[in-house]
Amino acid sequence: MTNTLSDEALDLLFREARSYNGWLDKDVSDEQIHAIYELLKMGPTSANQQPGRFVWCKSQDSRERLASHASEGNRQKILDAPVCVIIGYDLDFHEQLPWLFPHTDAKSWFAGDADARKESAFRNSVLQGAYLMLAARALGLDCGPMSGFDQDATTKEFFADQPRYRADWLCSIGYGDRSTIFDRSPRPEFDTFNKLL
Amino acid sequence: MTNTLSDEALDLLFREARSYNGWLDKDVSDEQIHAIYELLKMGPTSANQQPGRFVWCKSQDSRERLASHASEGNRQKILDAPVCVIIGYDLDFHEQLPWLFPHTDAKSWFAGDADARKESAFRNSVLQGAYLMLAARALGLDCGPMSGFDQDATTKEFFADQPRYRADWLCSIGYGDRSTIFDRSPRPEFDTFNKLL
Repeated sequence: MTNTLSDEALDLLFREARSYNGWLDKDVSDEQIHAIYELLKMGPTSANQQPGRFVWCKSQDSRERLASHASEGNRQKILDAPVCVIIGYDLDFHEQLPWLFPHTDAKSWFAGDADARKESAFRNSVLQGAYLMLAARALGLDCGPMSGFDQDATTKEFFADQPRYRADWLCSIGYGDRSTIFDRSPRPEFDTFNKLL
Repeated sequence: MTNTLSDEALDLLFREARSYNGWLDKDVSDEQIHAIYELLKMGPTSANQQPGRFVWCKSQDSRERLASHASEGNRQKILDAPVCVIIGYDLDFHEQLPWLFPHTDAKSWFAGDADARKESAFRNSVLQGAYLMLAARALGLDCGPMSGFDQDATTKEFFADQPRYRADWLCSIGYGDRSTIFDRSPRPEFDTFNKLL
């Protein structure tokens, strides 16, 4: 196993990667979607909670339904992308812990504490969404994350069969059109938002 | 630029990487900490909010102070690691948007809406924490994320000079001791927590 990533790999994941609004007319296959999940599920979550719930909207119909709940500025970014994934979470993820974290009774840590479940589901599903984006980039795809949409209406429409799931944010995935992006926004120096003690 | 990562690189980031509790007696340099931040800050956050605030506890003294606020099971994981970073966020991140997102007045989107700021600071700082972990792995380091600690006491002690910052979770960083880990917890099949529409 290699010990560190090459400069080229760091460019692909972090330094040259960009968020896209415009997309090339090039499909993402079901196999690619599965490959992203196979990587993202390996990333760490607290007590292996795996609270993320993912709806991959690939058909024209599903993207149209999703776009109808997005802010005006985000609609086209969903319609033009080959896939847009809803990153959601399960408020009752703890029901799955007996098989996801079998060596101890982690379910009991969360039973009866809805606030702790909400906080942990939110935090850990967002971690999984970040793994999703970096996995997609690692596989040669680009991402366009979005938070401007109606979470409640999207939850109702896409998680109707799962009343404890919640839609949290969205991410278009495909092959980004470099001609549609501007210069990168500024990045802080280390000392601005870090302390080293 | 390479188009996809090698299998070896995917192993390093996702498939072979593990969360560690035990650490080899091998330092992490200030340069390595800076290198992690230089990568993580390139990852996407909504409107380039960059709400994450990071306290890298490297000195014995700072790790002892941090460990005193951790759950009993997490104390040694902080004391034994060469570095443990507090991942926090700024509830008033919007004050920085005029320079972080200069092409529009994004600060006004959040002014007067403390709930929206809290949600966005939480979500986007967690994304940054995920980038931090994958950046550390990309640079040959291992991670041990933890959420069992007193957030309020840690906020008071480490962000006393920044009353709008909040401590959210912790991550030890170093060279993991493979002899201290067990088999990987189970991972779900695609169909368990995904829908493809």
